[in-house]
Parts: sequence; structure tokens; C-alpha cells
Amino acid sequence: MNAPASSLLDQDRFARAAWSRLAEPGDAVAVSLVARIGAVEALRAVREQAHPALERFAPRLGVLDVERDLEVGARFGARVLCPGDPDWPTGLDDLAAPPFCLWVRGPADLASGCRRSAAIVGARSATAYGEMVATDLAAGLAERGFVVVSGAAFGIDAAAHRGVLAVEGTTVAVLAGGVDRPYPAAHATLLGRIVESGLVVSEVAPASAPTKSRFLQRNRLIATMTVGTVVVEAGLRSGSLNTARHAAEHGRVVAAVPGPVTSMMSAGCHQAMRDGYAVLVTDAAEVADALGDLGADSATRPSEPARPGDDLDELTARVHASLPVRRGVPVERLAVAGGLSPAEVAAGLGRLELLGLAERHGEGWRQRRS
Amino acid sequence: MNAPASSLLDQDRFARAAWSRLAEPGDAVAVSLVARIGAVEALRAVREQAHPALERFAPRLGVLDVERDLEVGARFGARVLCPGDPDWPTGLDDLAAPPFCLWVRGPADLASGCRRSAAIVGARSATAYGEMVATDLAAGLAERGFVVVSGAAFGIDAAAHRGVLAVEGTTVAVLAGGVDRPYPAAHATLLGRIVESGLVVSEVAPASAPTKSRFLQRNRLIATMTVGTVVVEAGLRSGSLNTARHAAEHGRVVAAVPGPVTSMMSAGCHQAMRDGYAVLVTDAAEVADALGDLGADSATRPSEPARPGDDLDELTARVHASLPVRRGVPVERLAVAGGLSPAEVAAGLGRLELLGLAERHGEGWRQRRS
Repeated sequence: MNAPASSLLDQDRFARAAWSRLAEPGDAVAVSLVARIGAVEALRAVREQAHPALERFAPRLGVLDVERDLEVGARFGARVLCPGDPDWPTGLDDLAAPPFCLWVRGPADLASGCRRSAAIVGARSATAYGEMVATDLAAGLAERGFVVVSGAAFGIDAAAHRGVLAVEGTTVAVLAGGVDRPYPAAHATLLGRIVESGLVVSEVAPASAPTKSRFLQRNRLIATMTVGTVVVEAGLRSGSLNTARHAAEHGRVVAAVPGPVTSMMSAGCHQAMRDGYAVLVTDAAEVADALGDLGADSATRPSEPARPGDDLDELTARVHASLPVRRGVPVERLAVAGGLSPAEVAAGLGRLELLGLAERHGEGWRQRRS
Repeated sequence: MNAPASSLLDQDRFARAAWSRLAEPGDAVAVSLVARIGAVEALRAVREQAHPALERFAPRLGVLDVERDLEVGARFGARVLCPGDPDWPTGLDDLAAPPFCLWVRGPADLASGCRRSAAIVGARSATAYGEMVATDLAAGLAERGFVVVSGAAFGIDAAAHRGVLAVEGTTVAVLAGGVDRPYPAAHATLLGRIVESGLVVSEVAPASAPTKSRFLQRNRLIATMTVGTVVVEAGLRSGSLNTARHAAEHGRVVAAVPGPVTSMMSAGCHQAMRDGYAVLVTDAAEVADALGDLGADSATRPSEPARPGDDLDELTARVHASLPVRRGVPVERLAVAGGLSPAEVAAGLGRLELLGLAERHGEGWRQRRS
């Protein structure tokens, strides 16, 4: 942990890179040690086996080779981002066990991107409906200047990344394994496209394998580096609900997309809404409304065009409702039909005529169609 | 308003039947007059044109024939239900303009039925999805002893009534026109079946036509005679949202069924949930939970069966996650994989072996599948 690397990275950065290999993501022992005495001293303590609790890092110390990790990273254009760096996403600092560093590939600025961002997550075994909604949401958010963060998995994740790329927006893929290691392998091309304009991010050192526990830990990063999380489709045990709960626990906005009650892939979304921690969203405007700047991003309420006669007072509406469409009917009969006096009918007809909603016809009155 | 009828109905009942013909449903003038001086005196005041505001009832006074209305009603087996009657649904008393009476056909007891009831409402132009959900919800609620109230319209209403009839439950159709006048005409058979075991109800006199304003007024009856209202599908301008808002305004539970965000027939449901006055429900158990007796009707949370290893402590879970499925791996390599000391791995393996989740294999350990 000196000579060649120290020319590129200072000691702390080097030690943090070492910790990203030594400790499992979220390891409470490592995190509290580094927080207390710093990454460099913590690494020394492990080397000296200063405490029995540090024994868990001994097996990996034997295979630790930070120089090699940095070389592999550099070969893939990855840089090491540390807390305090200008492009460090400060949302991660809310975590009880924040990452020691992030390995980051791609041209985008992670910190500024995360300031206006949405995580879009969901089931790997998504339906065609879910993938379509995820694509639309992601594209709509990108068009509104949001960075879309997801996990590059099959299903919803990939649909979200692709939706952003389709409109040339910025998207961030947070991986459970090393940034040099496309996972799933079938998404190598997708990840290659993401790296060109956005970012591929991981808290584990290059070449690390994605494991079950790393996927779960990865979810906490997605949940806290973003302003909020949208679950598009999720089974009742979906990992994306884990992301959503992380987001809710850390005070982030959580939104979910409804779907058919007959679809198990929407059951997790519906449960999150029933549990009260997720708000219902149906399009990108509503997500932007929930996550964006107050005012600027307020969603207009969906509505259908007003119909003539929508805002008549009750009496006039009653007259209007009693008017025939074809043959005119005299005031006396309209009075019986509407349960009104002839004078009230006449007054109502006057207002309706002014509004262009009634016209004389023969001996009586009828509706006027625009 | 005396002799022959008074042998069947007392004067107040007779006068209320007259008012159900004289005044449009919800007419504020008539309601306040009857509330202040009683139906009989109010009728006399109209006959005597005691006040200019009463002129609106004069046109219909000329065609009023309560005897004939009662005869027509009787021919269709309709009785006149008045406030204070044992089977009067007291929820209606919450209305600012309650009906003067109800014309009721069918054997069921409206008051006791409404005590455990749900309104199921929705779009006439429902989708196959909506009709299926409405049928399932209605059947499930009927099986749980709920009376299902709806409006006999095409689409969701009819699906709800049919769902109840299919399981031989009790359903109530509230009509905007007279109870002798099946509307829509295509539902004459359906209404005939409802009358056999349930009820067909209206606040307007027999032979009255259903009009636009009567449909809107009818909605307030459905909303307040029931414990709560479930909207299954609704466009953004659906009349069923009018029912739901009536229900919410009167403190009733309002629930809505989600659907695809791509379906305009679910847009009204989603908006009601976003507006915060409707809770999301996905099945009859959840509706019963929202509307039924606390405790007895509590819905169990939907869940998938637990998987082995679900509630392991973090350290043991990490060991479990690093275990291979096929060839056993020695403790030292598991320690590197899990980021743990050999002692921690050994302890985790001990717990996993006890739980039947790990087994020795060759020189090492692997997952044990049940």
C-alpha cells in the first residue's frame, strides 16, 4: 500500500479500495472500524490482527492485491470515488454502513445526476406490460432531466435503462459484482452502451462476483443515492421491494405502478401501496411530481375535456337534462318533466340559449348540439 | 289523499309517495319543506300555492295520481318504505336531501342487509378485466355475508349483481327510474332474478323515466345506504366516481381496484387513490377487511411461502449464500468468499447444519436442498 499507487491515489483512497475488496458490502465491523480510525489505520489494524473481531478479514488479506484491482479497474476505465469527492453521491452518507468507495465507469457526474434522479426497479420476470411501462417511465423521466438509476437486471431494470438510452438521457447501472464484469452476461452490450454516456457503478472491487448478499446490499445503494424509487412490477417477495423499503426507511419517496390485480407481478406493488409506504403513480409526470422540484414538476391532473353543460347550476342543469334532442317540447311539458315551475324553466332556457345549449324548435325547445 | 288509500297507508306514507312523484330526487325546496312541516302539510301547502317557491310543484300536481302509482307499484309487488320503518336503511338519513320514501320490490330486508353491505360500482363500458374482477369481488363478498348494492347498469354493475346471484347471495339494485321499469331494458331478466331473492329499489314513483339527473341522485343513495363503495373500473369522468365521492363525503369507506395504467377504464380508480379518498383493494378479503367488522373480517396479508434460510442472522446468511450447490468447498475458501474468519464460517456452518441447510460433502461443505 505505497509506492506506485500512491502516485495515483492518496493513502486513504488506496486503503478504501483495499477495504472494498477485504470486507463484504455492509460489513458492520469494517464500517465501524474505518469510521473510527480511518481506512488506513483500519487496514493496519487488520494486518496486525489487533483484535479478535478483525480475524474475519484475515482470509482475504492473504489474497488482497490492491495494485492489481486498480490495474484491472484502469483497464476498464474505472475510477475510485470516495466520500468527500466532488462527484460522491452524498445520499449514500445516510446509510448506516456506507460503501468505502465506489468503482465507477463512464463519463457522467454521479453527484449532480443523483440530485435529480429516480431509481426504477422491479421484477426480473416482468410482464410485457411492466417492461413497456418501465420503458415509458424511464424515457419520460429522462426527457424531464432525471437520471434513472437501476440494477441492469433482466426485466424492469433493463427496460428502464433502455428507455433512457432511447431518448439519449443519462442512466446509471449499479452492479452487485465488479464494474468490469457485466452481469447478467447477456447485458454486456447494454452495459457497454450505458458506460458510453452514463455510469456503471459498484462498491465491490473489480472482478468480484455478484452474490446473493451483494445484490441485497447493492439495493441499499440504489435506494439512497436517488431522490426516490419507483417499483414498476414486483412479486410479493421481489428484491425490488427490498430496495423500496430501504428507500422508505431513509426518507426517500417511494412510488409504485399499479397493474391488474390478477397479475402476481403487480402484487408486490399493490402491497407496498396498501402498506402505505408507496404512492401510486401512472406516468412519468406523476413520478416527476413526486420526486422533482416543487412547482416546476407538478403534474397536471389527468382529465378529459369538459363537456357542454358541465358547470351549470343545478336548476339550469335540470332544465337542460329535460330538453329533448329532436322535436321541440313546450315549456309546460318541460316543467312537468323537470319538476319545476314554468317560470323556472323559462329562466333556465334563457341561460341555456345564451350558452348555445338550447334552441327554439317548432312550438317548443330542444337541445342545441355544437 | 284520503279514503281508499288511507286503508292501506297512513296519511304520511301516502303523502310521501306523492312527494316521490311531485319533486325531483334531491329537490332542496321539497326536502326542507317536508322536513319542516311534514309530508302531509307540505302537500297541502303546494295545493294551496302557499308560497311562490312552491310553484315548481304545480305543473306535476296537475298530473299527480298517487292511487294509480300505488296500484302500479302493487301490481309489481312494490311496497313503499318510509323513514322510521323497521327496514328503512338508516344510512340514508345522513343525506342532506334524503328520499321521501323508497319504492321497493323483493323479499330481502333492506335495513339489515345494508348493515353489512358493499356498493360495487364502475364503468358501463368496462373491460373484460373489470367485469371479471367485479364478478369475483361480488361473489367473494356475498360468500362473506355481505349484501352487494349496485345500479343494474351495463358493465361493472351487472357483473357485480351476477357475481352475487351466482353464489346465491343477496343483491340490491338501485334504479334511477321506477321499479316497474327495467333499465336498461336488456337487463329485464337480470332485474327479474334480483327481485326473486334481493331487492330492486327506487326513490321515484313507478313508471318514472330514468333521466340524467336522476342517475346522479341515485348515486347518492347507493353511496349512503352502504357501509362502503368499491370502484372497480372508472374513466376519469365516470359516474361511479360521483358515487365514490358521495360515499367519502358521508364518511363511508371508499375502495378502488387498480388496473393497467394503460387502461383508461382504470384511470378514474387510480385518480381516486392518488386523491387519497380511496384505498387500494385487490380482492374480496381486502374489501371485507375495509368494510366489515374489525377482527372478524381482517384480511390476512398475501404472502408467498417462506423459503429456507429466510430468517437467518446476517452472518449465517452470508455463510449460506457462499455455499456451493454441488461440490463441497472447504472452510478456508468459504471464509474468503464470505469475507469472514474461519471460526465465523465454522459457527455459521454449525447453525446451518442444525437447520438442515448445509451438509458436508467431500473435503468441504455445500448447501443442502430439502
